[in-house]
Amino acid sequence: MKTLHVNVDGRGYPIFVGEGLLGRAGTVLSEVGFASAPVVVSNPTVLRLHGRNLIESLESCFGRVNKIVVGDGERFKTRATLSSIHDRLFQARADRHSWIVAFGGGMVGDTAGFAAATFMRGIPIVHVPTTLLAQVDSAIGGKVGINVPQGKNLIGAFHQPHAVLTDPAVLGTLPDRELAAGLYEVIKCAAIRSVSLLQYIERHIPEILARRALALEHIIVAAARIKARIVAADEKEKNLRMVLNFGHTMGHAFEAATAYRRFKHGEAVAWGMIGALLLGMELGFPNRQEYARLIRLIRRVRPLPSLKNIAFGRVWDALERDKKFRAGKFRMVLLPRLGEAEVRADIDPLRFRRFLKWFLLQGGNAETLLDAEGQRGIRTAFPSSTRNSPHAGR
Amino acid sequence: MKTLHVNVDGRGYPIFVGEGLLGRAGTVLSEVGFASAPVVVSNPTVLRLHGRNLIESLESCFGRVNKIVVGDGERFKTRATLSSIHDRLFQARADRHSWIVAFGGGMVGDTAGFAAATFMRGIPIVHVPTTLLAQVDSAIGGKVGINVPQGKNLIGAFHQPHAVLTDPAVLGTLPDRELAAGLYEVIKCAAIRSVSLLQYIERHIPEILARRALALEHIIVAAARIKARIVAADEKEKNLRMVLNFGHTMGHAFEAATAYRRFKHGEAVAWGMIGALLLGMELGFPNRQEYARLIRLIRRVRPLPSLKNIAFGRVWDALERDKKFRAGKFRMVLLPRLGEAEVRADIDPLRFRRFLKWFLLQGGNAETLLDAEGQRGIRTAFPSSTRNSPHAGR
Repeated sequence: MKTLHVNVDGRGYPIFVGEGLLGRAGTVLSEVGFASAPVVVSNPTVLRLHGRNLIESLESCFGRVNKIVVGDGERFKTRATLSSIHDRLFQARADRHSWIVAFGGGMVGDTAGFAAATFMRGIPIVHVPTTLLAQVDSAIGGKVGINVPQGKNLIGAFHQPHAVLTDPAVLGTLPDRELAAGLYEVIKCAAIRSVSLLQYIERHIPEILARRALALEHIIVAAARIKARIVAADEKEKNLRMVLNFGHTMGHAFEAATAYRRFKHGEAVAWGMIGALLLGMELGFPNRQEYARLIRLIRRVRPLPSLKNIAFGRVWDALERDKKFRAGKFRMVLLPRLGEAEVRADIDPLRFRRFLKWFLLQGGNAETLLDAEGQRGIRTAFPSSTRNSPHAGR
Repeated sequence: MKTLHVNVDGRGYPIFVGEGLLGRAGTVLSEVGFASAPVVVSNPTVLRLHGRNLIESLESCFGRVNKIVVGDGERFKTRATLSSIHDRLFQARADRHSWIVAFGGGMVGDTAGFAAATFMRGIPIVHVPTTLLAQVDSAIGGKVGINVPQGKNLIGAFHQPHAVLTDPAVLGTLPDRELAAGLYEVIKCAAIRSVSLLQYIERHIPEILARRALALEHIIVAAARIKARIVAADEKEKNLRMVLNFGHTMGHAFEAATAYRRFKHGEAVAWGMIGALLLGMELGFPNRQEYARLIRLIRRVRPLPSLKNIAFGRVWDALERDKKFRAGKFRMVLLPRLGEAEVRADIDPLRFRRFLKWFLLQGGNAETLLDAEGQRGIRTAFPSSTRNSPHAGR
């Protein structure tokens, strides 16, 4: 078992990562300091596949555990689910000394976390994430919340967990596409902060996709460490934390423009990263070989759903709603070099608009675009804008 | 204008108190650092009486102000109101750079504060409290939340304001009963921490009830300072902050047992303080003259709604639901001497039960009980239990 410590908000919490941790959850959480039985919030799928393992371990240490079952899927991340968790907590006679274990993917973690943040003004939450995405991303950092008709995650809070328990073994039952979606976020962490993690993924991608325990544990620990460090330095997303949004600016817009139906979040982020890399080339960042390398890695994970037939106007509207334009400039995270993401607030909206139109058009023909693995390819795929770029002569 | 500084959670915020502040809100809040127009959350009554004054001042500094109007009264402190504030914020195109001014009593402050705490994971809130109770209590300390069918304030958060602007002039339109209800909370602050504030109130109660600016400003500043100091030392109610609950243990139970219809919150707290003082005598605290003095002051404010015909069982149930019993003992704040409240966790439930039964019975005949201004009176009013008390011989 590996243990990371996250320091936020004047107190720290541990992230435990280890094969078989589910069956030792009771002991591990006793050592964290919990003494009474938690309320477990989960969904039917996770409970069916892995519930017994976790619940038995918790009950052997803490006695009878109450379970609150919520719907499986993002469409249940609503005010109604939040209210129902609160109501079930009252039914279970929970009080301000109670604590919650969120056992599931991002939806369970975000919703149960927000319920914990607001139940009697805040009770402790422990995350036991069961998707790769939740293990490396949503369970770390304290962002909790729900979706509303106006948009995703727009109502929520910061509520740091008391502990995160990550068992790579649960990924054995994760659908391939979900695993890939999580892996794109791991690649994002590598891209913004760690060339060595990038190399590791490049070398071990077959083991990762085959869910070999050692490989999974390695990338989870590495990605969680990157996220934890950034979050510790900037809990409430003033600035530094924004680099975690690499690939998310366009990614969110692609998700919104397709009504959250075509892409998994990680897949949209993968497209967003590719877009940000190509935009970087367009803006004249010199490291085209590095970008091509990263795009190649993203492509090796799994075929991405196509960008075909996404209306430019809907993407642009989503970016405007997302308040990415400030003071006449467009803001997003770019990657001047691998491992060193930067927030750029000075992007010319007209130039970005032209780029995005081109990208969506090419995206319809993803293979052509993505075969562009060096200068020549990109130039071919991207003729009009390189002509207009100050770096067109290179 | 007087300025207090509250230090919580690694950052501080100012409380401004001064006659006529409403009309200078724009200037004062510019100096705090706000630059864009806020969204004002208020109710129709407050907007009608004082809205123009505040809004004009804000608009002259920040430009056009959006208003969100919520229902007037505790019965609107609901999930539905919370959702409607969020929806109206989206309609007003608010984002994470927006800020809210909560302009009203405790209901507006708590609900708008909770909306601010959870809108896009938290935006700043400034309180402009318009009742004495809100000015000395609910606007300070960061407790925000809503009521649910299971109980009051059970869903909520801690969300410290960026500033509190208190204008005693707004109390000119406050109904007498509301003013009295707030004054009981001021007396509570004095009772737990400040004999000199108690003396001031004793000497100036006619000016206070006549809403003389100087007297109001004096007690608001003094009570706000007491609350701010306690909150700064213990933001999230671990221990010290509990002394603010003096009078609230029984008070809450009286409110709940009468379905929140008979008493204003402050009135129930007034009865709760009287109960806590008499219980202190029963437990043998020696300063009966001091207690009689405090009870006398509470009585001078205004006649309290009677304790008649409150079923003991309903009060007891409310205390149990409120988790006041732990490890076989009853816990509440007592006042061994004026100005020095203490949390006592060792009260024998049987003894407390007997006392409470007697108190409710006597409460039906409030004059008899409250004429007990010294040893003799109390003894007469409280014969059975003084016989059983170790201090019965005094």
